[in-house]
Amino acid sequence: MSTLLLLRHGESEWNALNLFTGWVDVPLSEKGRAEAARGGELLAESGLLPDVVHTSLLRRAITTAHLALDAADRHWIPVRRSWRLNERHYGALQGKDKKQTLAEFGEEQFMTWRRSYDVPPPPIERGSEFSQDADPRYADLGADAPLTECLADVVDRMLPYWHESVVPDLQAGKTVLLAAHGNSLRALVKHLDGISDADIAGLNIPTGIPLHYDLDAELRPTTPGGRYLDPEAAATAAAAVANQGR
Amino acid sequence: MSTLLLLRHGESEWNALNLFTGWVDVPLSEKGRAEAARGGELLAESGLLPDVVHTSLLRRAITTAHLALDAADRHWIPVRRSWRLNERHYGALQGKDKKQTLAEFGEEQFMTWRRSYDVPPPPIERGSEFSQDADPRYADLGADAPLTECLADVVDRMLPYWHESVVPDLQAGKTVLLAAHGNSLRALVKHLDGISDADIAGLNIPTGIPLHYDLDAELRPTTPGGRYLDPEAAATAAAAVANQGR
Repeated sequence: MSTLLLLRHGESEWNALNLFTGWVDVPLSEKGRAEAARGGELLAESGLLPDVVHTSLLRRAITTAHLALDAADRHWIPVRRSWRLNERHYGALQGKDKKQTLAEFGEEQFMTWRRSYDVPPPPIERGSEFSQDADPRYADLGADAPLTECLADVVDRMLPYWHESVVPDLQAGKTVLLAAHGNSLRALVKHLDGISDADIAGLNIPTGIPLHYDLDAELRPTTPGGRYLDPEAAATAAAAVANQGR
Repeated sequence: MSTLLLLRHGESEWNALNLFTGWVDVPLSEKGRAEAARGGELLAESGLLPDVVHTSLLRRAITTAHLALDAADRHWIPVRRSWRLNERHYGALQGKDKKQTLAEFGEEQFMTWRRSYDVPPPPIERGSEFSQDADPRYADLGADAPLTECLADVVDRMLPYWHESVVPDLQAGKTVLLAAHGNSLRALVKHLDGISDADIAGLNIPTGIPLHYDLDAELRPTTPGGRYLDPEAAATAAAAVANQGR
């Protein structure tokens, strides 16, 4: 039996402003910092203490991991980072207001971009304000760096990291914390729980509340969907995510 | 040519209270957090951008690395941690007031404990308030976990990590940031600059100001003693460290 803890970063400054963020590297808001620390308290209270943490390359997940682990007195555990845990690249929508985008393009197009499994937004223009062309952390990716992604793309680039870097930690008996993003975590939950391409649209993951999975020897969840460490707060928050842009 | 950047953690809450800290895992003070961020700004301004960071297992070095790298926009680089970069274990002095200790034991004994190369303070009592017996991060060390250390002990336990984990990064051409402590950094500087057991007593490293070494192919400093990124602030701060307890 392996223990996996998923933690979506706390509210970022752009979550608060209701902008599409994607790979734009915005910091946590003050509320987000408090959420991250509360996430760490929930870990400590539940006795689920991570032995290793994996994060994306984005500041909001990195800071969330730091604050949560500090609050849980586990700031000293080994850290691994990968772009493969990054949020979905939102293409040309990065930096755009969600409400304005909804008004401009209409409900159907808006929801297709936000929740369709395999239709990405238009690609971001190279060299534009919110592109990551010149970002040294992605220099190694070269032409493979995405210019937009749908959730299917996130599944494709996230799963190799899961299999190569996270699974060995779980198989070694470590309690693993994965501090990442709404869509990289949805991609993983889709894989773990065997959720269909259609049904994953309805799954929302709240910020800052650890989601606990016990996995069997074949890394199948013993409780489908896992268990939030604060189930009531998770239900309220997930409903709020579903209504973004309204 | 390799680039090494040494960063002593910003002021901790116990630095501010003038207590011997050692392996007690106290947080940074507000001033210390600002120093850490300023250290990161100095890195960014100098164009010395770390490719990898090594830290101790103590919160004040870990948080300093996090804040400095965040300020330098390098929060996403790989992180390595080791107890071998920890501060010197201060034995039975951990948790004691420096001024009271000076008054109680006198100048000679006080300076022997603080600055002699090979005389450790009395060992800490197992199970006492400021011991690390039950700390899970040192569980693997078992009976090898120190109960007190002199600087010679720190050199002995730090150098294996230097050779096995830091040197390979330098030889791979990476710019390495080492975020650690007054005495683990003094131990390293002693090694790098070939400082004698007697002369190392006079060397003080200030908090929060990156110390830059260029190292040749044999990992010898091209400029003995390196170069602080803010030399004036470093000189003032080093003098203050030398006068602690007065």
